[in-house]
Amino acid sequence: MIPITATLNFASDNWAGAHPAISKRLLEASAGFSAPYGASALDRQIEQRFNELFEREVAVYFVSTGTAANSLALAAVNRPGGVSFCHREAHMLEDECGAPEFFTHGARLAPVDGENGKIEPGHLKAEIERFPPDFIHAGQPMAISITQATEIGTLYQTDEIAAIAEIAKAYRLPLHMDGARFANALVALDLTPAEMTWKQGVDIVSFGATKNGCWCAEALIFMNPELARDLPFIRKRAAQLFSKSRFIACQFEAYLQDELWLQLARHANTMAERLREGIVKSKQARIAWHPEANEVFCILDKSHADLLRENGAVFYQWNPPRANPVLLDQHEVLIRLVTSFATEAEHVDCLLELLG
Amino acid sequence: MIPITATLNFASDNWAGAHPAISKRLLEASAGFSAPYGASALDRQIEQRFNELFEREVAVYFVSTGTAANSLALAAVNRPGGVSFCHREAHMLEDECGAPEFFTHGARLAPVDGENGKIEPGHLKAEIERFPPDFIHAGQPMAISITQATEIGTLYQTDEIAAIAEIAKAYRLPLHMDGARFANALVALDLTPAEMTWKQGVDIVSFGATKNGCWCAEALIFMNPELARDLPFIRKRAAQLFSKSRFIACQFEAYLQDELWLQLARHANTMAERLREGIVKSKQARIAWHPEANEVFCILDKSHADLLRENGAVFYQWNPPRANPVLLDQHEVLIRLVTSFATEAEHVDCLLELLG
Amino acid sequence: MIPITATLNFASDNWAGAHPAISKRLLEASAGFSAPYGASALDRQIEQRFNELFEREVAVYFVSTGTAANSLALAAVNRPGGVSFCHREAHMLEDECGAPEFFTHGARLAPVDGENGKIEPGHLKAEIERFPPDFIHAGQPMAISITQATEIGTLYQTDEIAAIAEIAKAYRLPLHMDGARFANALVALDLTPAEMTWKQGVDIVSFGATKNGCWCAEALIFMNPELARDLPFIRKRAAQLFSKSRFIACQFEAYLQDELWLQLARHANTMAERLREGIVKSKQARIAWHPEANEVFCILDKSHADLLRENGAVFYQWNPPRANPVLLDQHEVLIRLVTSFATEAEHVDCLLELLG
Amino acid sequence: MIPITATLNFASDNWAGAHPAISKRLLEASAGFSAPYGASALDRQIEQRFNELFEREVAVYFVSTGTAANSLALAAVNRPGGVSFCHREAHMLEDECGAPEFFTHGARLAPVDGENGKIEPGHLKAEIERFPPDFIHAGQPMAISITQATEIGTLYQTDEIAAIAEIAKAYRLPLHMDGARFANALVALDLTPAEMTWKQGVDIVSFGATKNGCWCAEALIFMNPELARDLPFIRKRAAQLFSKSRFIACQFEAYLQDELWLQLARHANTMAERLREGIVKSKQARIAWHPEANEVFCILDKSHADLLRENGAVFYQWNPPRANPVLLDQHEVLIRLVTSFATEAEHVDCLLELLG
Repeated sequence: MIPITATLNFASDNWAGAHPAISKRLLEASAGFSAPYGASALDRQIEQRFNELFEREVAVYFVSTGTAANSLALAAVNRPGGVSFCHREAHMLEDECGAPEFFTHGARLAPVDGENGKIEPGHLKAEIERFPPDFIHAGQPMAISITQATEIGTLYQTDEIAAIAEIAKAYRLPLHMDGARFANALVALDLTPAEMTWKQGVDIVSFGATKNGCWCAEALIFMNPELARDLPFIRKRAAQLFSKSRFIACQFEAYLQDELWLQLARHANTMAERLREGIVKSKQARIAWHPEANEVFCILDKSHADLLRENGAVFYQWNPPRANPVLLDQHEVLIRLVTSFATEAEHVDCLLELLG
Repeated sequence: MIPITATLNFASDNWAGAHPAISKRLLEASAGFSAPYGASALDRQIEQRFNELFEREVAVYFVSTGTAANSLALAAVNRPGGVSFCHREAHMLEDECGAPEFFTHGARLAPVDGENGKIEPGHLKAEIERFPPDFIHAGQPMAISITQATEIGTLYQTDEIAAIAEIAKAYRLPLHMDGARFANALVALDLTPAEMTWKQGVDIVSFGATKNGCWCAEALIFMNPELARDLPFIRKRAAQLFSKSRFIACQFEAYLQDELWLQLARHANTMAERLREGIVKSKQARIAWHPEANEVFCILDKSHADLLRENGAVFYQWNPPRANPVLLDQHEVLIRLVTSFATEAEHVDCLLELLG
Repeated sequence: MIPITATLNFASDNWAGAHPAISKRLLEASAGFSAPYGASALDRQIEQRFNELFEREVAVYFVSTGTAANSLALAAVNRPGGVSFCHREAHMLEDECGAPEFFTHGARLAPVDGENGKIEPGHLKAEIERFPPDFIHAGQPMAISITQATEIGTLYQTDEIAAIAEIAKAYRLPLHMDGARFANALVALDLTPAEMTWKQGVDIVSFGATKNGCWCAEALIFMNPELARDLPFIRKRAAQLFSKSRFIACQFEAYLQDELWLQLARHANTMAERLREGIVKSKQARIAWHPEANEVFCILDKSHADLLRENGAVFYQWNPPRANPVLLDQHEVLIRLVTSFATEAEHVDCLLELLG
Repeated sequence: MIPITATLNFASDNWAGAHPAISKRLLEASAGFSAPYGASALDRQIEQRFNELFEREVAVYFVSTGTAANSLALAAVNRPGGVSFCHREAHMLEDECGAPEFFTHGARLAPVDGENGKIEPGHLKAEIERFPPDFIHAGQPMAISITQATEIGTLYQTDEIAAIAEIAKAYRLPLHMDGARFANALVALDLTPAEMTWKQGVDIVSFGATKNGCWCAEALIFMNPELARDLPFIRKRAAQLFSKSRFIACQFEAYLQDELWLQLARHANTMAERLREGIVKSKQARIAWHPEANEVFCILDKSHADLLRENGAVFYQWNPPRANPVLLDQHEVLIRLVTSFATEAEHVDCLLELLG
């Protein structure tokens, strides 16, 4: 029925390859000589493109991975004894092998609770209050980081971002947004980049493009370039300055051209919605919580999960988040299904068919 | 005469783009789903390819930049109060913004003198002896690093590598080779990778492919996988583990296939030799020291250097290395001319013609 | 009634001064010349004294603070992406301004829950299991640390230490004991140093003497000297090697002589017991949980706490530990009363009298 | 003749013990309770004392070792990719096991040449110029550090300090003074602390008292408290905040009272002068270079050095500094003789007698 098992792939959007438009641009850009280390005309042009995108003059730094973007964001605002606040399930806390701590020479990440993968402002404030300014023994607050879309496929609404930004301002803390799935969030909320970020008070963005069709393109964006004063040194020293930087730039060129990035994200989200609808109708599975971007979490019988796998489906079983208690009976499991630009409707339908 | 100035480009091999064979392979590899973070079949296959290349089972880690490769090599063998020995003009000492110190949490690089860009064994031994094992105040030796080809386009002969390796063994220090221009050295010396490395006693290699036709492909090779025991954690934590790692792998696939890499390096070296021959015949310039790979250093009148630039030539003026005193009269400058896979014979001839 | 308010001091055992026997020894030791940096005869002699004390050959390193001892203990067993497990209320987690993270270059402290200030083995195991050996994204377990006596004045019984040590062994993790109040625990449990540490499986001890009558004497003890192989470099590099180290040694000399340290600790514990008994009889206050060493936590009306302060009592109000829910009505506060070698029975009685 | 060999001790001023006045003060201060962590009345009082001493409001931080003072000075002004300039023979470069690199997370120390142990301004400027502001690959200048008295017992005159400070100002770099032998320099030059430091442009001082009669008292002084804004966190996190900090304060109290510190330093210097005069007259030894504080370097036959040792003299043989070539014939050695507050005239005379 499904001849090539790999196409039933819902493991993660980073299992997808690269969108052909991006690969073709890379091929076209292969020839010729250009200034290295980010000094080429194309690098400058793409930096300018980000200014337009964000409707203000921003500082842009290309780096190799999302982990690098997140870590250098914190490194830029580092303080001795610093503590950064992020959601308990945040990628930077759970899945980056301590890179944020490494790049900040040991600044701490403090987990903050909140339902649906989102920091709850009251909890955030309570956590920050644990570090009174004059009590050096505990350390000092340094930054707040939110993830958009979150690790569990939910979204901060603009007012939710603004509420966190208000706390950030009150405590004079920079607000960072981990945008590994920035585009998916943007199209789901139907916002502009400016509206989803600095207009709500976000100061720094990890602008991810790898998961959404590039093969390696991550940018670190500072709304206030002054905050990035030392970033050129931080990035070079962190071994994140590509000599042939223009090949990152040209991925972004193709990615941002003619709204390709938004189309790809819309497609991924649509596929997730198709999945959700199918699961709602299915008798074998039920939605764990409402998916808002390109990740669908559902609960099904372990035997059905096995059946999916036997038919070539690829996906991860997931531990229920602490703040989103899902009641699993003892035969059930929670699984995560991620869609991407490369997911096709027939993949989704095939999976749903298997679910019965 | 030369319509497009960019083609008279001798600034550095990292100003070149990517070889079409490599870009095409990237395009072909764009489709489909693969396990991320180095776990794909292609990643495994290329790791196996390196085993063949080095004629032994090696540990291979892809990273984003040469600086990352060098820094993680040292991080893998890090010791508190550690001191690594490299040539005074080494890239890791002069041009990496302290990345080796950053990734090793402050281990020190000790400069060692030597003519022709190469560590002189007597000086090396004397420097190491400054750190007697029981004198904790000075710190402790940690590693030795050599660069092949060197920063000034010269080469360590096998017996020179072996002589340094002997010292490394005597003091139980791992020997690292910064191979940003590994291929250029290899074809110039007509050696196999094994002969140029572990057969002489090299333990770790930064295997660079970016300068020789890839757009971003650097591998860290450990001859003894046990030495790399913690590297998976070190690399992830250093934000150097690509999610779509297979696109690095596929660059290496094309690079290593049918000896493409050796052809590209041979071409670059041939172009350098063509340059050298022309300069020797020129009345306006003279060779500063004998070029052995793909970098030619020559001395010429400042006014001639300006003339070259006015005609579109791109290159760097260079500070005379301390250990290679070149007598410049007050009107003269030392310049560096780097050739690459992308340098064409007519570029060289055109430059020589300008030199008269 | 109590003329000098400072003597009603129950703030912390580090508010006390130094025991006269220790200060006198310092005075006697002032004259003469000795090898610096821990190489004097007295340093060697005290190291030997610790061998006797622990009934085995241990490695001993004097450092300046308890924070230094704890941090260097972790630094000695550091791993990239490392995670150390300690109780949620542990001093190293709550009160050292991120020093453990600093000295380990960003290794993480993972909080483990447990009642009465003690790690609960089941929770510990569950936390460790969150770091499967092959999942590099999460990091890797590195060490376990327990505090004896705990931050809230309770004690691990030998079988409780052994239970944690068993888990440590199973996962091949070194077990560290923060012994800032080592002596108080030892006399309360009536154990020998060997019985309270390595005989239960403890590998490293922060042996604190400052809180118990020295003015500055902390030792880091490794049961297996091989584990401390790099410690001489780690300590020197951490700026923790005193030039006139013998003055730390001579504090320990006086401290350990004729069981002075045990007498001082017994006295402090006896004072705490006297406090406890008084509070049990008091109508104004009640014990929050059973005190086992030299810290008494009690609950009283806020107005009574104010009254104590007005009469010169010095102590800290305390946030109820998460794992030890104490029901405070809205007029009540939890306070901590710490006794030390310098606490006198009449201080205690005076405080109790104020409590009515 | 000399019954107790230890008294012929010229190894280093840190082989001396503590001056009785200081030990007595420690004994007197033993009793009672005081706020810990630098918050006691005595701590405050001594901070005020330093304001008077330096004739301005300074920020004062007690730390445990000279290495800590130097390292935290650099940590306070740390920058990514930072490079600090110090003399090639500086203690922080040669004898601190990389502590400055550790506390600055890998900022580099760049050696600057200069005769007589002093940075030569021309060399300093040339070294700084190697780091052009926009060339990120090399890193960025961060601080300048001078040692007063120098490692080889010489002194910067005020105009020499001012000349270096002028360069520091020109490049906007803070100027640090390692004052491990601050008092010896001060009395030799007959200056006030203000005259020797900020009046010439010094910004930060490691104010050492340990070598001059305390047993452990080092203070880090910032002329501009704003520069030390994060120091409370840096120090705590560096495990350098003593709980019983008042015992450092009380050492300084006795040290600074009635000019004790100046008397002790004068005595040490006088003993060095006595040594120098004797050596000048001696036939067996000659002065290597003119001693200006409390260290005398002299050249003598190896057999005479052995004779001294056989008679109980303790001292170090020294490697000739690169910038101070001393011609040793093959039977000769260079030795260092250090005097201190504890050196007695008869020790000196006895040594001179042995020299014949």
